[in-house]
Amino acid sequence: MDYFRGFLASSGELKIQMRLVSMSLQGTTWIQEIVDLIQNGGDVKQSQRAPTHERFPFIEWTIPSRGLSGLKQANAMTSPRMLKTHLPFHLLPPSFLEKNCKMIYVARNPKDSMVSYYHFHRMNRNLPAPGSWEEYFESFQAGKVCWGSWYDHVKGWWQAKDQHRILYLFYEDMKENPKHEIQKLAEFIGKSLDDKLLDIILYHTSFSIMKQNPMANYTSVANEHMNQSISPFIRKGVIGDWKNYFTVAQNERFDDDYRKNMADTTLTLHFRFS
Amino acid sequence: MDYFRGFLASSGELKIQMRLVSMSLQGTTWIQEIVDLIQNGGDVKQSQRAPTHERFPFIEWTIPSRGLSGLKQANAMTSPRMLKTHLPFHLLPPSFLEKNCKMIYVARNPKDSMVSYYHFHRMNRNLPAPGSWEEYFESFQAGKVCWGSWYDHVKGWWQAKDQHRILYLFYEDMKENPKHEIQKLAEFIGKSLDDKLLDIILYHTSFSIMKQNPMANYTSVANEHMNQSISPFIRKGVIGDWKNYFTVAQNERFDDDYRKNMADTTLTLHFRFS
Repeated sequence: MDYFRGFLASSGELKIQMRLVSMSLQGTTWIQEIVDLIQNGGDVKQSQRAPTHERFPFIEWTIPSRGLSGLKQANAMTSPRMLKTHLPFHLLPPSFLEKNCKMIYVARNPKDSMVSYYHFHRMNRNLPAPGSWEEYFESFQAGKVCWGSWYDHVKGWWQAKDQHRILYLFYEDMKENPKHEIQKLAEFIGKSLDDKLLDIILYHTSFSIMKQNPMANYTSVANEHMNQSISPFIRKGVIGDWKNYFTVAQNERFDDDYRKNMADTTLTLHFRFS
Repeated sequence: MDYFRGFLASSGELKIQMRLVSMSLQGTTWIQEIVDLIQNGGDVKQSQRAPTHERFPFIEWTIPSRGLSGLKQANAMTSPRMLKTHLPFHLLPPSFLEKNCKMIYVARNPKDSMVSYYHFHRMNRNLPAPGSWEEYFESFQAGKVCWGSWYDHVKGWWQAKDQHRILYLFYEDMKENPKHEIQKLAEFIGKSLDDKLLDIILYHTSFSIMKQNPMANYTSVANEHMNQSISPFIRKGVIGDWKNYFTVAQNERFDDDYRKNMADTTLTLHFRFS
């Protein structure tokens, strides 16, 4: 971890500063695709040069048996680098802040996050098996899931956003008005998009197109690591699917917990559950 | 069915008229035990003379391969007879009404009914397999379950109660204030209970005692007919267990349906869901 925290984020040697795409675990791939297309001016072919995880090294990800190290990948790149992390804010290597890197965070309502994350655990063989839905629900509530408690994660980044260059987005806003959120992203990155370019990006980052895009849907990853026959990596992408999983009793418990955990933040205003 | 509808209910040759215990499918065994104890003056040994289904013939129940026929059993009894049926009111053999028999009906809130009935289907090998919870939910909603739609059932008996000698009870009232409901039953049957007798009946018809009573818990029925290792016949007996089964989406659909189906009855006031 010390080695990891020592990771040196390079500041803007080129016109565009390095940006770190960090997520409340959902919507990452979506944002990555948008960012890449904004970055290269809507050159779809260019965005298909490699799968997402090669275009955006996942800095804390390492599978020693495969010789895979996100950190090594990142170190081998030149600026501007586009990186991915799921780290909670307090575990972020300090150089990202020292170098004033641009960071994009996406939060998704915790109920849909839980369902999405559950299915991701089911199909991703490099993550612990989630158990039954009931078991996973308990783990999530207790914050005993990879990258820790959802509450700590979204609140940590929310609190940090006013002191650092963080664009804090919401998955639900991206679903409701993707054009508007793509514009926000472009502004944050420092690019202007004309209507034509905006439409190209909108189209190529739509759910159905991304689901078919082998450079974005993780089908390039071997079955033994991600078994898409259990659950596809790009699964449903809808708001409110949690209603098909949460029992009424689970929902009552969740809402109680949510109220307690969100009592100390204004972030709560952004999530709607009905 | 014609043969069945021709069933002759004997009127009160003895002091106590035949009573028919009919149920919205839950609470039947409970009511039967209370009625039997009221009837025999709290003689617990007497109530343990035989299993429930022999003490109360289940008139529409027949398993030809076992030579079992509730109707034959009922015909072989002398008055006063205590019978059981789950028939909806409109399928009741007319003689019950012609002879002015006393009938007891218990309704239970439909959500807990569905859960209870689902587990009963799982363990009772003489009923169709319920499928998954999701499948059973759909069958129940469509009224495609044994003895038909819950709505038709409770509404049919509710409508009939003012024209006939029907005591209409609610499972939830029995849970909340069993003493009061036992008194109501005794009054309806035409017996008075002193405090001591009331306490005896209360005790012997409590959930934990009935669960252990081999003459009331259906353990006398062979495993091949009722597999209690899948789900015990006397299962939980609590209010609100539906919250552990209904997803939030199912609950929303159910509530919509409930509002539509109950728009034409005052019965709706009796069920609370929270």
